[in-house]
Amino acid sequence: MMPRANSGNFFEDFRTGQTIRHATPRTVTVGDVAVYNALFGPRFAVQSSDAFAEKIGYPRSPVDDLLVFHFVFGKTVPDISLNAVANLGYANCRFLAPVYPGDTINASSEVIGLKENSSRKTGIVFVRSSGFKQDGSKVLEYVRWVMVRKRDDKAPAPPEHVPRLPDIVTPSTLGDACPPLDMAGYDFELAGSSYRFGDYEAGEKIDHVDGITVEEAEHMMATRLYQNTARIHFNQFAAAQDRFARRLIYGGHVISLARALSFNGLANAFHVAAINGGRHVAPLFAGVTVFAWSEVLAKAELPGRSDVGALRLRTVATKDRPCPDFPYKSDGADDPAVLLDLDYWVLMPR
Amino acid sequence: MMPRANSGNFFEDFRTGQTIRHATPRTVTVGDVAVYNALFGPRFAVQSSDAFAEKIGYPRSPVDDLLVFHFVFGKTVPDISLNAVANLGYANCRFLAPVYPGDTINASSEVIGLKENSSRKTGIVFVRSSGFKQDGSKVLEYVRWVMVRKRDDKAPAPPEHVPRLPDIVTPSTLGDACPPLDMAGYDFELAGSSYRFGDYEAGEKIDHVDGITVEEAEHMMATRLYQNTARIHFNQFAAAQDRFARRLIYGGHVISLARALSFNGLANAFHVAAINGGRHVAPLFAGVTVFAWSEVLAKAELPGRSDVGALRLRTVATKDRPCPDFPYKSDGADDPAVLLDLDYWVLMPR
Amino acid sequence: MMPRANSGNFFEDFRTGQTIRHATPRTVTVGDVAVYNALFGPRFAVQSSDAFAEKIGYPRSPVDDLLVFHFVFGKTVPDISLNAVANLGYANCRFLAPVYPGDTINASSEVIGLKENSSRKTGIVFVRSSGFKQDGSKVLEYVRWVMVRKRDDKAPAPPEHVPRLPDIVTPSTLGDACPPLDMAGYDFELAGSSYRFGDYEAGEKIDHVDGITVEEAEHMMATRLYQNTARIHFNQFAAAQDRFARRLIYGGHVISLARALSFNGLANAFHVAAINGGRHVAPLFAGVTVFAWSEVLAKAELPGRSDVGALRLRTVATKDRPCPDFPYKSDGADDPAVLLDLDYWVLMPR
Repeated sequence: MMPRANSGNFFEDFRTGQTIRHATPRTVTVGDVAVYNALFGPRFAVQSSDAFAEKIGYPRSPVDDLLVFHFVFGKTVPDISLNAVANLGYANCRFLAPVYPGDTINASSEVIGLKENSSRKTGIVFVRSSGFKQDGSKVLEYVRWVMVRKRDDKAPAPPEHVPRLPDIVTPSTLGDACPPLDMAGYDFELAGSSYRFGDYEAGEKIDHVDGITVEEAEHMMATRLYQNTARIHFNQFAAAQDRFARRLIYGGHVISLARALSFNGLANAFHVAAINGGRHVAPLFAGVTVFAWSEVLAKAELPGRSDVGALRLRTVATKDRPCPDFPYKSDGADDPAVLLDLDYWVLMPR
Repeated sequence: MMPRANSGNFFEDFRTGQTIRHATPRTVTVGDVAVYNALFGPRFAVQSSDAFAEKIGYPRSPVDDLLVFHFVFGKTVPDISLNAVANLGYANCRFLAPVYPGDTINASSEVIGLKENSSRKTGIVFVRSSGFKQDGSKVLEYVRWVMVRKRDDKAPAPPEHVPRLPDIVTPSTLGDACPPLDMAGYDFELAGSSYRFGDYEAGEKIDHVDGITVEEAEHMMATRLYQNTARIHFNQFAAAQDRFARRLIYGGHVISLARALSFNGLANAFHVAAINGGRHVAPLFAGVTVFAWSEVLAKAELPGRSDVGALRLRTVATKDRPCPDFPYKSDGADDPAVLLDLDYWVLMPR
Repeated sequence: MMPRANSGNFFEDFRTGQTIRHATPRTVTVGDVAVYNALFGPRFAVQSSDAFAEKIGYPRSPVDDLLVFHFVFGKTVPDISLNAVANLGYANCRFLAPVYPGDTINASSEVIGLKENSSRKTGIVFVRSSGFKQDGSKVLEYVRWVMVRKRDDKAPAPPEHVPRLPDIVTPSTLGDACPPLDMAGYDFELAGSSYRFGDYEAGEKIDHVDGITVEEAEHMMATRLYQNTARIHFNQFAAAQDRFARRLIYGGHVISLARALSFNGLANAFHVAAINGGRHVAPLFAGVTVFAWSEVLAKAELPGRSDVGALRLRTVATKDRPCPDFPYKSDGADDPAVLLDLDYWVLMPR
């Protein structure tokens, strides 16, 4: 008899070109939004207030972009990364349509590359994962690569293929998840800052000042909300045997914390349009206080749009380390306080 | 002047045949569902996705059966078990109608038996508790018996009556809370498993593999969500004086954890139709990691229904003990790792 | 270049007569209500059940008064009290209109007084803060005074003005947030108590019996839900340098705990109509168990209303100290167990 429980795919189970439809579809509700707000405390006005969103042309407040990302990511875990050793990177993540409470999200992944490691014990799996609404329209797409264990070291490796991935999402493709807006209705005082697209300069750095300490109950609630089943986040009994002897916090948790912290300095950066890439530089554990700072890497106008412009940001999150001096690298190596190095595009009123 | 605060009923306050209407009515919302999801992480597609539920004939996703149970149970606490020493057992628990967000739940209990203990300090109270919707229709019914303190040891005991209780809910009475479904619309891939009613065999055992560590904040949030006021769950100051010196976690918490864990192996068991009986074998405290396994005790077809069949399950939850070898009893005594021994019926697509 | 992050106003930045519109507008949802219920466990039937509320004349359950207060208070923090040393007091807090899920809340504050302290390092700022719905109608108004640091000790102080504040909200102004009700539809059994306005006597004291232990994850979730950004609640890294070496819990948290505990003895006090004043006598930290008791200070009929009457209550919350003997003051000094001394008006069915 076959085992009933899912033990996930191992490296040798994947084939380039294969498509996997993921369980479990999920209707996003105002309840999910409230739990997310309680866990991270974002304050971007567009997502916080239906009245504010309606005044600029949305039918109501869209769901936070990162919450949509976490829902899609969570669905991929049982099929893609249940036997992962490490999540290696992201590329070409694009938000393609706004999601509203009541929408149901599905996800699927295409395997776009495979490469066995020289140890023959693991291999790298490249997937393009997509999130869809109930009507089949795509809301999100991203590439992730992850190191996955082999079930059997001696199993033959699938044919090697390493995909070419863009370093950056080109600005001309941004904005699909942001309808044309009427910025005459955008109230900068209510939004919390007078700084708009034109006020930021490439190269400037922003200390987001505040810090948030993370508790075990919080990261587990967040990760369960996303139906992300990666065992290492929930199981202290098993974690006690591991190198860190602690539950490892889902990498997306620090992304959401950094995004919420970034409000203080980027209050009008209301939409994450794309993620160019990201590195989880160090693991996060409960008890740590997370701080963040951002650098404006570039600015871009969007073709045909006078309502919003795009800032390319690097946001760096740190552990137990305030960021007035923007800790990042020293002598080419990552500063030991750095947790996250995220490169992404946000949209702002012009 | 009478004390304004409720000090609950003591054993000698109950009379067989008495009916008690419980406070507080509660409208169930998508907010409650989201908090429940964040605390337990269930992944059954019918409850997770309105679109999935609609494709098989529900008007929308029904509320998780156990969340309904916890709401009804919580309401009974101030009247039935505020002065309880121990919750002894459940029988004949039947889910009778689906509950949807927006429905308001009320509860009442009938005292169906009383038996003083030989110590004369406590007695056993048997109640049949029922949950109702705002229109008066019954959604849930179960028998519980609980050991309750006497206010005054010397008070005369009420007349003794011990009700006859069924060992098992007969399969022909199952399914009232599951409308006739169109299983052509049931997408097994999205639901997370291809195994349906016909694939399971009586006698087979399933390790649910994963473990979840419980935090104080989580069980208190859950139990407050249900408006369950049993003091021992919330009050560390008082608990410090007790035998365990810890807040005791509501027994329903481990039931919900075990049910969520059971998705891994029973992904299509989307509806709990009845609970035959259950024992809280050992108390649960924060910091423990909960694991679970299930045995298929029996299978049953439902009269006149070709859409779903019923599996009778024993689900066993353990503390800090993975379950590949299905720990249960040794030499007739409970395995010291066992927390919960639950006997219930689930419905699955045929 | 101006710093992008908000560093808040300092004492010398305020001017009497100045009005500040606060960010971030917030749509209140059933999700927020559910998270609040999970964190505090209130059981007042009007707020818990749409069906109960509709039977007495509400269009649906109104949002808990204190949740509305916390939302408004949270919005004022970045502008008023980010550089506060201490929150000194409240006066003349009136709830003016019911708030329902779907309403969007905005807030603004008028500076009504300023007084530099003799140290010249700090000053007292008096503000009248107001909460509004999306249609501009006012839902809440209160005066708060807070000690705020100066940016520069040598900066000249703004002109001194100390407003006259009422000791008490006059009963004839109560009830605006409570529509005329049909008390024939009020089911006292479902509400959890038979005691109504006429049953309480001025001078009587009520022990609320139960205790609730507070966890770090809980108070941070609550305070983030309100988008309250006061740093001391979230940042253990910074707090470790402070006098208490602990995250200080938002003062509103103990108010909500005391209100939820007060259900046991005041189950029909369904609406907080006004807060006359309040003192945070001692700081609250995680791990403490909170208890509460109340005294009926006065009773008042409302002009032209036969549906509800008002009780003026003093509710005292304590830390790790049950309240059968109503601890408050000894020899004129606060009992060392007292956390909160709150003076407010509630409405009850007559």
